[in-house]
Amino acid sequence: MDSIKVVVAGPRGRMGREAVILAEETSHFELAGVLDRKNGGEKLNEIAEGFSSSAPIYTDLKECLFETKADVLIDLTTPETGMLHAKTALEMGVRPVVGTTGFTEDNLKELQELSEAKGLGVIIAPNFAVGAVLMMKFSQMAAKYFPDIEIIEQHHDQKLDAPSGTGVKTAEMISAVREEKKQGHPNEKETLAGARGASYNGIRIHSVRLPGLVAHQEVLFGGEGQTLKIRHDSYDRKSFMSGVKLSCEQVMKLDTLVYGLENIIE
Amino acid sequence: MDSIKVVVAGPRGRMGREAVILAEETSHFELAGVLDRKNGGEKLNEIAEGFSSSAPIYTDLKECLFETKADVLIDLTTPETGMLHAKTALEMGVRPVVGTTGFTEDNLKELQELSEAKGLGVIIAPNFAVGAVLMMKFSQMAAKYFPDIEIIEQHHDQKLDAPSGTGVKTAEMISAVREEKKQGHPNEKETLAGARGASYNGIRIHSVRLPGLVAHQEVLFGGEGQTLKIRHDSYDRKSFMSGVKLSCEQVMKLDTLVYGLENIIE
Amino acid sequence: MDSIKVVVAGPRGRMGREAVILAEETSHFELAGVLDRKNGGEKLNEIAEGFSSSAPIYTDLKECLFETKADVLIDLTTPETGMLHAKTALEMGVRPVVGTTGFTEDNLKELQELSEAKGLGVIIAPNFAVGAVLMMKFSQMAAKYFPDIEIIEQHHDQKLDAPSGTGVKTAEMISAVREEKKQGHPNEKETLAGARGASYNGIRIHSVRLPGLVAHQEVLFGGEGQTLKIRHDSYDRKSFMSGVKLSCEQVMKLDTLVYGLENIIE
Amino acid sequence: MDSIKVVVAGPRGRMGREAVILAEETSHFELAGVLDRKNGGEKLNEIAEGFSSSAPIYTDLKECLFETKADVLIDLTTPETGMLHAKTALEMGVRPVVGTTGFTEDNLKELQELSEAKGLGVIIAPNFAVGAVLMMKFSQMAAKYFPDIEIIEQHHDQKLDAPSGTGVKTAEMISAVREEKKQGHPNEKETLAGARGASYNGIRIHSVRLPGLVAHQEVLFGGEGQTLKIRHDSYDRKSFMSGVKLSCEQVMKLDTLVYGLENIIE
Repeated sequence: MDSIKVVVAGPRGRMGREAVILAEETSHFELAGVLDRKNGGEKLNEIAEGFSSSAPIYTDLKECLFETKADVLIDLTTPETGMLHAKTALEMGVRPVVGTTGFTEDNLKELQELSEAKGLGVIIAPNFAVGAVLMMKFSQMAAKYFPDIEIIEQHHDQKLDAPSGTGVKTAEMISAVREEKKQGHPNEKETLAGARGASYNGIRIHSVRLPGLVAHQEVLFGGEGQTLKIRHDSYDRKSFMSGVKLSCEQVMKLDTLVYGLENIIE
Repeated sequence: MDSIKVVVAGPRGRMGREAVILAEETSHFELAGVLDRKNGGEKLNEIAEGFSSSAPIYTDLKECLFETKADVLIDLTTPETGMLHAKTALEMGVRPVVGTTGFTEDNLKELQELSEAKGLGVIIAPNFAVGAVLMMKFSQMAAKYFPDIEIIEQHHDQKLDAPSGTGVKTAEMISAVREEKKQGHPNEKETLAGARGASYNGIRIHSVRLPGLVAHQEVLFGGEGQTLKIRHDSYDRKSFMSGVKLSCEQVMKLDTLVYGLENIIE
Repeated sequence: MDSIKVVVAGPRGRMGREAVILAEETSHFELAGVLDRKNGGEKLNEIAEGFSSSAPIYTDLKECLFETKADVLIDLTTPETGMLHAKTALEMGVRPVVGTTGFTEDNLKELQELSEAKGLGVIIAPNFAVGAVLMMKFSQMAAKYFPDIEIIEQHHDQKLDAPSGTGVKTAEMISAVREEKKQGHPNEKETLAGARGASYNGIRIHSVRLPGLVAHQEVLFGGEGQTLKIRHDSYDRKSFMSGVKLSCEQVMKLDTLVYGLENIIE
Repeated sequence: MDSIKVVVAGPRGRMGREAVILAEETSHFELAGVLDRKNGGEKLNEIAEGFSSSAPIYTDLKECLFETKADVLIDLTTPETGMLHAKTALEMGVRPVVGTTGFTEDNLKELQELSEAKGLGVIIAPNFAVGAVLMMKFSQMAAKYFPDIEIIEQHHDQKLDAPSGTGVKTAEMISAVREEKKQGHPNEKETLAGARGASYNGIRIHSVRLPGLVAHQEVLFGGEGQTLKIRHDSYDRKSFMSGVKLSCEQVMKLDTLVYGLENIIE
């Protein structure tokens, strides 16, 4: 495989830092440069501990992409920045890999048009954890044969929202292929309110919150005489890097926009 | 161990049938007789398939207990019948082992007084599955060190009530030793109602209902950097017989009433 | 959907009995007849408890298929009988659905040629539990992204062989798409022999045997910062009937032989 | 509760650092001082990031314990150092809490004699994760009712030894109360060597090693018609601090040596 020249935006951020390490440690990736808000003109290993690369630091994206002759821009910052960076990259002939849950339909449409006009791939993904994406994809496939489904997602007790984004996204993906149905006994009743969980088109979602938990989800399918369970455990943000790596490899073969890692996984 | 002479009430019922098989198959038990509504004077292996014992069938409990010189009466029928039988047994010097969820405080008080007056043990248990009772007992013990607790109980989708009796009982037993506390983030919010489950003194209970499931429960404890999970799976009503056997053995050593298998388990 | 006329071989056998119930209870199936070794000329509901259908009983397969104008023959008996029945069925224009682990390559080749000559579908499956087949299929898909894999299969303690057939089959399916690799630390060592389980092309397989268990399997995938688990629980032989039903529906659309349920599942 | 004056040895080590944070964050603990190999005379928050306490740093243990009037010495360093420190502490009237797997019988005997001569408590523990200790304790209790047991321990693939120390310790604790028995079918056979795992007095132990895993263990009990599972997941070394805290509280009430957290847990 030819080496892929990568630029990482926000190398001192939590996710950006992992992306830098990914690029450093992947033999067929070359960290050509990084985009930072400060430290322009310095080298990466001069400004922060834990980096081995002497990649140059830029504060201007155009200059960065032009001088480094980058193939791919990795942006795991914010929706606003990610959108601006993706457009600039495409205009300069560089393929963007952007991690964000915040893009609007309009954002995606604009990028898709630009992508196709330039004949350059773009990958936008709300979740880069390959295991989580496989869990969702398999759940969608299994729903065809087992339409009775409950989702149990489990997170640390500092999480504010219930259900989790992944829980709702899983139910959405299943609903796209399954007819709405009321699950459980038609006459079932809750003697304590909430026991049967939330309902999303009839799929039940239960949110567990406890100290010590990180980010976990089970999708449980029931059929006569059997059950099937698909569970993903995420222990560390490093879990996202397998998907970033895969995306950098796949975006080189694309000439259009792909939204969601599930669409590049076979 | 000396052989224990056992009488089983309702040998053709679902649970009674299992109790008969238990008595037949346990080397230090002797099935001295059975109490049935009909077939008086016949032998057990003459009236129904699947029984090997030729124990005599009685339709009158007093006659049965007197003639068989029984040590223990096993009654897994109904609360009303169980109460009548337990009293008659005690009056005739026989120790009752009764499985029921339906006894009132008054029932228990009456039996306790009779038990102590006679100096004879009685065991009344709502749940004879030793594994389920251990799950509840261990949960109570763990709650002292891990006060953040969620219960996930899972049953077949023909079950009407949510949460299950075992789920509520577990929360009750924990609450007896744990102060009420609000779990999760103080500002957590449900974007889909019911996601966080039911609350019993702050303990969250989630009820899963799917075809294929039998009767399962997880109790999940969270602490900094760790979680502890205790899970019981019941696949078959045979699971109750381990507790019936244990109760017959223990009731011979008792001279008072014990309510709940957890109180004879060390 | 047009009604499918079904004939079941061996209606008094354990699996045949379930297939009869399936045909009775599925609205677009019609139980046109059964093939038994005795009771020819009688009706099904006259010879055994638990059947509602008055389908005619035949002792000769040709006569049965001719008179009932069957679409599909379900055979869940033995490899020898299944092979004979499948050939006869195809020759008479009836599509066979056969459950067996015992067919040889030669058997399959012979049936495939006959199937294609007649332009009639045949489905042969070693495992009709849809959930188990999905577990294997998903495992094969996940192995592409997570090549470090361990299988934990759990069965009742009356099982003689370890690992289970499903455990080995899962490892075979994964090996077909994954390069052999040594898992674990290069210098790992067992201080108690056997701790690291069996190895099949480097995939580790662990066999748990305990009373109470029925038939369960977990496939566990590990990647940096995350794990993915796929688990199937089979509680009852009814679990096979979902696959038999699916096969009867799909075989009507086929004009060749398909071996293995995974090949008709999308 | 009166405040407990604590001294921590090795405050810059991985575990020592957590112990310092524990002492800083626990309202009824007072971090009276720390023992370090260097930086004597300075204050803790002057020498390392992440500490808020200005506790004085000592390089000599006797001086440290004398000047700080400590109640408890926490030592999570090495067996050799831990032994020396524990003796010195006892001689100076300070109760030691030592975390180590490396003490010999002789070490323990010597400390016990010193402890009793001084009438001062000592706690030595190989594992301070309360959840892991509860798992082992509950397993020992459950073994009385469910003598068929398999242990599945799961760790990251950088671990060299299989089974894990906790896996073996669990089997030891169970063996202390259970008679040795051969599990599984008497005629069971492995078609792939190692499938049935390691055997410790008949208890089967299976060791899973995968990237992504941290430190997990399941203990699985089987009985007729039911199974019981006790699982501990350790995600972070912070999990040890609950046991260190508990030990500091309990050691104040003791006048002898206790080995193992399970002996101060009720």
